[in-house]
Amino acid sequence: MNPQPYLQLDRVIHEKGRLAIMSMLAASAELSFTEMRDALGMTDGNLTTHIRALQQEGYVSVAKSYQNRRPLTTCSLTPAGRRAFTQYIDLLEKIVRQNKSE
Amino acid sequence: MNPQPYLQLDRVIHEKGRLAIMSMLAASAELSFTEMRDALGMTDGNLTTHIRALQQEGYVSVAKSYQNRRPLTTCSLTPAGRRAFTQYIDLLEKIVRQNKSE
Repeated sequence: MNPQPYLQLDRVIHEKGRLAIMSMLAASAELSFTEMRDALGMTDGNLTTHIRALQQEGYVSVAKSYQNRRPLTTCSLTPAGRRAFTQYIDLLEKIVRQNKSE
Repeated sequence: MNPQPYLQLDRVIHEKGRLAIMSMLAASAELSFTEMRDALGMTDGNLTTHIRALQQEGYVSVAKSYQNRRPLTTCSLTPAGRRAFTQYIDLLEKIVRQNKSE
């Protein structure tokens, strides 16, 4: 077995909740906080913590605005986040292939 | 995006180090502690901690014996460990497919 793909997995993306968030964002230009929270069944606190970790890593950008006078928070992947996520999924694919062939 | 595969990922297997250990063991009938440590570049302490977590989950069995009068520790997947690992890899495959198609 080649241990490289395992060692290279990005720790920030690898966490289950953040992996789900990154996958959702990768499929859209942007998503609102509430859309993500409801789709993922996360608490506000849990989603906030994960988004903050992804933001600190430079993977996600957060924009605050208003819609019908109510505050609206939207998230999107940064170019660095999209690159890191593509790399991560490529590594997962290697890991799946390695384990399916053995 | 269907969040189910993400939520179903087995937390015990998902940790990078343990994922590498499970993959190594899935490819062999059994492996010695030192073979695994050297292949994965882990410290004794790190590997011991991971093996113990996998053992507590019922995924790995550990056997102690002697070879040329020196103690030999070998690990192997239990049937439950093999099932859980197969399920885990199937979920990873779904996640990869979902993200490659979008």
